[in-house]
Amino acid sequence: MRVLGIDPGLTRCGVGVVDGTVGRPLTMVHVGVYRTPADLDTARRLHRLEQAIEEDVLLHRPDVVAVERVFSQHNVSTVMGTAQASGVAMLVAARHGIPVHLHTPSEVKASVTGSGRADKAQVTQMVTRLLRLTEAPKPADAADALALAICHIWRGGAKNRLELAVAAARATPTRGPR
Amino acid sequence: MRVLGIDPGLTRCGVGVVDGTVGRPLTMVHVGVYRTPADLDTARRLHRLEQAIEEDVLLHRPDVVAVERVFSQHNVSTVMGTAQASGVAMLVAARHGIPVHLHTPSEVKASVTGSGRADKAQVTQMVTRLLRLTEAPKPADAADALALAICHIWRGGAKNRLELAVAAARATPTRGPR
Repeated sequence: MRVLGIDPGLTRCGVGVVDGTVGRPLTMVHVGVYRTPADLDTARRLHRLEQAIEEDVLLHRPDVVAVERVFSQHNVSTVMGTAQASGVAMLVAARHGIPVHLHTPSEVKASVTGSGRADKAQVTQMVTRLLRLTEAPKPADAADALALAICHIWRGGAKNRLELAVAAARATPTRGPR
Repeated sequence: MRVLGIDPGLTRCGVGVVDGTVGRPLTMVHVGVYRTPADLDTARRLHRLEQAIEEDVLLHRPDVVAVERVFSQHNVSTVMGTAQASGVAMLVAARHGIPVHLHTPSEVKASVTGSGRADKAQVTQMVTRLLRLTEAPKPADAADALALAICHIWRGGAKNRLELAVAAARATPTRGPR
């Protein structure tokens, strides 16, 4: 499974592509950060972000796009831009028929470090180790995007198997009352 | 000036196209509401909305897109979807090189009714009268989108004249100290 993780933002948007399945070593395919200038109007910043993510999708052809879930109660001053950036990421995925999954920051931290309250340094350290990188991905947004992709491979893998099991159970003819 | 007003939302997104200039009668060119099903995932809802707004932009070729400014402190449960829908509207405009302007709900109400605290019925009534419509546009989202377009024509018109005057004054050679 190839996952494109996106840590959305207008100032910095982290992207990371990881190949892997549960129980097997993970491989980093791509990592990057897109920045849009703060003096550009929001509409054009969103458009630049769309073009950058579109290029990544076309180049790397992910099976899934995993986006960090944005909460309205945090960072009121930047939450609108972050929400809009996440919307653009979701839109680009949907346009290409790629399923989108959202993960909360604490789900991502817990998946990668074992603790939902890990700090950025711990996340970066574990991402570097799990992907067997020679140096830590920088800035933190890039590491977060890789962590999102890893989180999805591990959590999504378990969820997908559960969904398959439920679907298989439903498909089995039963003799119970209608 | 032709303005496409957009009252963003995932459940209902109002759109209204108005032709006009300050001091002249206004003309309604188009009004509509786009709905996306609540049981569809957000990514696909955003994609459907993008396609609908893209069609409107291509069909009506507005000079400006006016979008309602979303505030994070209101309606926490729906604000993320609204912010993302507004981001999609802004993105589509930017993609076509059309300037985007944001107006707050109270700016829109004040422009159209004279009071920033007017209720929906008053806004609808004034929109119907200003555009000389035989019946009120429904639902409220459609009337709000038309009100946004009218607000932009009136406020944007004054602002544009001011910007032109400032630009002209700056271009005039002066004899003052450097």
